[in-house]
This record gives sequence, C-alpha cells and structure tokens, in this order.
Amino acid sequence: MSSCVFCEIVDGTAPARVVYSDDDVLGFLDIRPIKRGHTLIVPRTHSAGLGDLDPHLGSRVFAAGQVLAGAMRRSALSADGVNLAVNDGRAAFQTVFHTHLHVVPRHHGDKLTFAKGLVVRRDPDPDETAEMIRAALDTV
Amino acid sequence: MSSCVFCEIVDGTAPARVVYSDDDVLGFLDIRPIKRGHTLIVPRTHSAGLGDLDPHLGSRVFAAGQVLAGAMRRSALSADGVNLAVNDGRAAFQTVFHTHLHVVPRHHGDKLTFAKGLVVRRDPDPDETAEMIRAALDTV
Repeated sequence: MSSCVFCEIVDGTAPARVVYSDDDVLGFLDIRPIKRGHTLIVPRTHSAGLGDLDPHLGSRVFAAGQVLAGAMRRSALSADGVNLAVNDGRAAFQTVFHTHLHVVPRHHGDKLTFAKGLVVRRDPDPDETAEMIRAALDTV
Repeated sequence: MSSCVFCEIVDGTAPARVVYSDDDVLGFLDIRPIKRGHTLIVPRTHSAGLGDLDPHLGSRVFAAGQVLAGAMRRSALSADGVNLAVNDGRAAFQTVFHTHLHVVPRHHGDKLTFAKGLVVRRDPDPDETAEMIRAALDTV
C-alpha cells in the first residue's frame, strides 16, 4: 500500500496541528488554508473518497464538522459563517486521496479575501490559530 | 413562523423535481444549478443552519449526499467527481435559511464551466436531468 499523508497524521508519524479528535475521526489545520482556521476532518480509517467511505464513518465526519463549525463561531476567530465541503475526485479538486471534509470559517465581506486566499494559502501563526479553535471546543 | 420555501417543498405545497427521499431528508434539483444535476438535500425538519440542526439529522443529510454522489457518477450525467457543500450563514453564501447540502456533479476540465455556471445557473432540461439521477438511484 502506498503511503498516505493523512494516515500518517492519524498514526502520529507525520506532524499536524490537531484541533479535534474522537474515536472515529481527527481534525487538524490545513497546511495551505484558504482562510485562517481552515480545518480538515478525516476518518481514522483510510478511504480514497466517498465511494469507499463507510457510511457510518461519513456520518461521524459530518458530525465533527458540525461541532467545529460551532467552535469557529465561538472561538477568537469569530467566524460569521462556515463552509463545509468535500471535494470528491480529481475533477472536483480533490488533491489528497484520503476522504476529508473542509471546514472553513467565513466573515462578512471576506469574498475577495476568500478568492485571494485560494492563491495565497498561508497563515502567519498557525499554532495560535489551532489554540483558538481548541479553546472554543473546551467551552462546549 | 415565517414561510420557508424548503419546508413548503417538504410539505409538497411548493413544486420541486425530487430525486431522493427518505424518512429524514428530501433531495431535489436546485432551480439555479451551477452544474446540470446540482441537487440540494434538506432535512424534513426545519433548522436555519448547523447551529440548530439536530446532529442525527445532519448525519442523515450527509448519508444522502454520499448516496447521491454515487448516483451522479453512475447516472447518464457521468460525473467524474462530486462536490458536497454546506454554506452556513450569510457570510458563507447561504441564501435559503433552511439547512441544505449542495451535491454538485463535476467533470474533468469543467473548471471554467464551473466558474461560468456561477453566473448562468440554468439547465435547458431539468426534467430530464432529474430522471437521469432517479434512474441511477434505482440501480443501487
């Protein structure tokens, strides 16, 4: 089996800024965020995409996305809205073939920033960003 | 309570091209598709967004999205990929305040069409499109 960077993150053999964890899924900051706080939620068990994803695990991924969406609104990131997205297949812009849900915090009037972010994709302080999300989850 | 067009579709008092239905959710064609076959999945019980969506219903919405994604690949629409997306809040481009999951069939090389579709949003034959998706679901 070829190596999968998200499996390595789940195993702990590759680094990541983890913001959410439960028995079924792991959530960590995207290293190329389109907005600060952009998080990926992955099932702990490998699947390439929706076609081979255990539906129970899919439900767990979405449930974590819903929790993270609330955290991003409550956190110091002060999100006004959130996009959840799965890009399934290369034609849909999937680049890592381990199923993942994007959780992207949004702010009123950030449309241009959002478009620009598609090119820039950097966060000046990702450690602080991760801590902001973790702190909000503790307030649940 | 103010009227909600998606509740009216669920109740059957507003028209829609339904492609998926179970006890918890309903799936129907978006009347302003960004791609042919663009489907919305809504919980039958009203919630404005992720913040007041029953997590069990959220899981059911996502499960239906996974089923629809497979159907779009198998259908005569021949999708090469699929985007699933929830826009939660006005800042995230939500326009109808009844929680919904977008299911968008994608094709290799359609990036420009996708961008153009954000403006155009029409389907020359939505009845045929709905039938293509229903037919693929029957093959499960």
